[in-house]
Amino acid sequence: MNNYRFQSTTEIIFGKGTEKDVGIEVAKYAKKALVVSYGQPFEQELMTVIRDSLDGQGIESFKLNGIKPNPEEKKVYEGIGVVRENEIPFILAVGGGSVIDTAKAIGFGAKYDGNFWDFFTDKPIKETLPTGVVLTFPATGSEASNGCVISNKELGVKRAVGSPLIRPKFAILNPELTYTLPAFQTFCGIVDMMSHVMERYFSNTTKTDLTDRLCEAILKSVIRNALILLEKPQDYDARAEIMWASTLAHNGLVGTGRSQDWASHMIGHELSAMYDSTHGATLSVITPAWAKYVYNANLSRFVQFAMRVFDVEYDIDCEERTALEGIRRLEQFFKRLNVPTTLKELGVESDEKYLDMAEKACRHKPIGDIKKLDAEDVCKILKLAE
Amino acid sequence: MNNYRFQSTTEIIFGKGTEKDVGIEVAKYAKKALVVSYGQPFEQELMTVIRDSLDGQGIESFKLNGIKPNPEEKKVYEGIGVVRENEIPFILAVGGGSVIDTAKAIGFGAKYDGNFWDFFTDKPIKETLPTGVVLTFPATGSEASNGCVISNKELGVKRAVGSPLIRPKFAILNPELTYTLPAFQTFCGIVDMMSHVMERYFSNTTKTDLTDRLCEAILKSVIRNALILLEKPQDYDARAEIMWASTLAHNGLVGTGRSQDWASHMIGHELSAMYDSTHGATLSVITPAWAKYVYNANLSRFVQFAMRVFDVEYDIDCEERTALEGIRRLEQFFKRLNVPTTLKELGVESDEKYLDMAEKACRHKPIGDIKKLDAEDVCKILKLAE
Repeated sequence: MNNYRFQSTTEIIFGKGTEKDVGIEVAKYAKKALVVSYGQPFEQELMTVIRDSLDGQGIESFKLNGIKPNPEEKKVYEGIGVVRENEIPFILAVGGGSVIDTAKAIGFGAKYDGNFWDFFTDKPIKETLPTGVVLTFPATGSEASNGCVISNKELGVKRAVGSPLIRPKFAILNPELTYTLPAFQTFCGIVDMMSHVMERYFSNTTKTDLTDRLCEAILKSVIRNALILLEKPQDYDARAEIMWASTLAHNGLVGTGRSQDWASHMIGHELSAMYDSTHGATLSVITPAWAKYVYNANLSRFVQFAMRVFDVEYDIDCEERTALEGIRRLEQFFKRLNVPTTLKELGVESDEKYLDMAEKACRHKPIGDIKKLDAEDVCKILKLAE
Repeated sequence: MNNYRFQSTTEIIFGKGTEKDVGIEVAKYAKKALVVSYGQPFEQELMTVIRDSLDGQGIESFKLNGIKPNPEEKKVYEGIGVVRENEIPFILAVGGGSVIDTAKAIGFGAKYDGNFWDFFTDKPIKETLPTGVVLTFPATGSEASNGCVISNKELGVKRAVGSPLIRPKFAILNPELTYTLPAFQTFCGIVDMMSHVMERYFSNTTKTDLTDRLCEAILKSVIRNALILLEKPQDYDARAEIMWASTLAHNGLVGTGRSQDWASHMIGHELSAMYDSTHGATLSVITPAWAKYVYNANLSRFVQFAMRVFDVEYDIDCEERTALEGIRRLEQFFKRLNVPTTLKELGVESDEKYLDMAEKACRHKPIGDIKKLDAEDVCKILKLAE
């Protein structure tokens, strides 16, 4: 086990009806708030509840609507403008990862005189406005994470930044708000949270027994409850388990004391930047292909994964068969969720951009932990994912 | 799953050599600190490291030594006196649960004009001095918990209080500092952390899949690593898993969304108050007896415990046999750790105080969640534990 620091300060407010008290939570920090949201018609009822709650506490609210998946830099600039013009001290995100990440970027961007994109190249974050979240789409874990991912359309890239300062102050998680999520989004979110666990689980750090088991606990629970949601999309308890899992998968807990991989995420981000693909769908395509390419670099870890997460029997004659059966079951599980598992299903029909994406993914150095990957390796993984 | 709030703000600083930077952590809060410790000769080297680190940051330090297991009210009064006299704004606990709980009580006691014991009867905590921890004895989880347990010798009682305000600001966890713990303390600590998980696991709340699995993950890891420590007390990684498990067992994470039991702890506290027994040892005696008394009130939960934590096979003909085999393996595991599993081993030779302890344990209302227990039930459990 490696030395580590861990602190996750976000207050989780979980359960039925909890969004009704969002005004009370915001009032602990400010009397003015910028409310960032998708601004879709289906959210109208929720937005009324939130406005009423803010009004009830005498909080003046401003709006920033129209956030899209793979959120873009231009909405961040727009939000920073509104915040500065109206001297708004608090940002409330109502939505999923793209809304939360936009809110976070507005938060640290507004406190900085230069261009907020500087933080996505090399500048460390020193200061931010506080943020809060009403989560409607469990997936990215951004509601309690120290991360923020923004796409820069002008540069054709998608970049992540991390700082303990940008963890939201609170996150309101009402599973009922996720009942109306379309199946595709629900299951892409589930792939994303599983990937957040697997990127930490697939590590070459040894002697990480407890966090291994915590990872397996989350994966098994997500798998079980995803299958319930396939049959019953409005099962409260299954929605609740999935929602809580999304937060725990990415608040840092299951990565303590170990190196981490993140190669699948890096490749996935380049697919999203190039083709505007849904984040979770890039991961359901890349992760099994990545696993098939790297498993021999740490066979025992893939054996443990197969046995403990997918209940594969130990094959005394061939450990490799045990490991491969685990990867096969992971891929089959994704297929059962009706998410893409091939680049073709993702709409990527030709290999002409593989090298470009691979080079962008490995722009600073080789990626991954289980196996260090250069651009050539990434091209082979993309080939395996066809 | 029930609605809940969860926030654990303590920063964990984990690993080899981390105590050397305690001065840097304290300096974030204050330039003067009261250092609370056992003050035992074996700690001398550690105390020198800590004093040097505090000195290195120009922090003036004051001492409160002589804290004992089942920490007493008089040391809290003494600490409050030192803090007030010297206007000390920060309290650093160097030790295990009794030192940390003394530090916490001094923290909220010093900010209150009345008698600090008021908080252990009914007064809510509104304010406290900040505390920090260098942990040397993983067991109570107090290093990141919202709880504090103090014994009042004058009243012959041991009482707990809880508030989010009293979570330490940071907890430094270096597993190497636990190498010299005697086996009895090591394994009593392990019983205590397992009990913190089981008190939450044995709940009548249904549909708690993810937290069930997190509980099982911690229990399985603790069991595995406790057996390693039986053979190799200085195995760094086993010490590390145990140390991290003690924190996660009691920071609130594995109790989210569920009612909790705590009957074994309540009975154990009365044994400690009456006989000054080691906390963990009261739990290794009471928990199996409690389980034998209550398992039929929620058979399926005890079946799951047996199968998932102790790998008991499901008995198609008799679920009860499955459950009882799990309880038997728990008791056998405690025996293997050489901790007491009977009142006799604890030095309790007669039943004359059973009723007194039972009535004190149930003084406000019936205790427990799996099965509500009154004083008569508690007497029967004590009888089963003979």
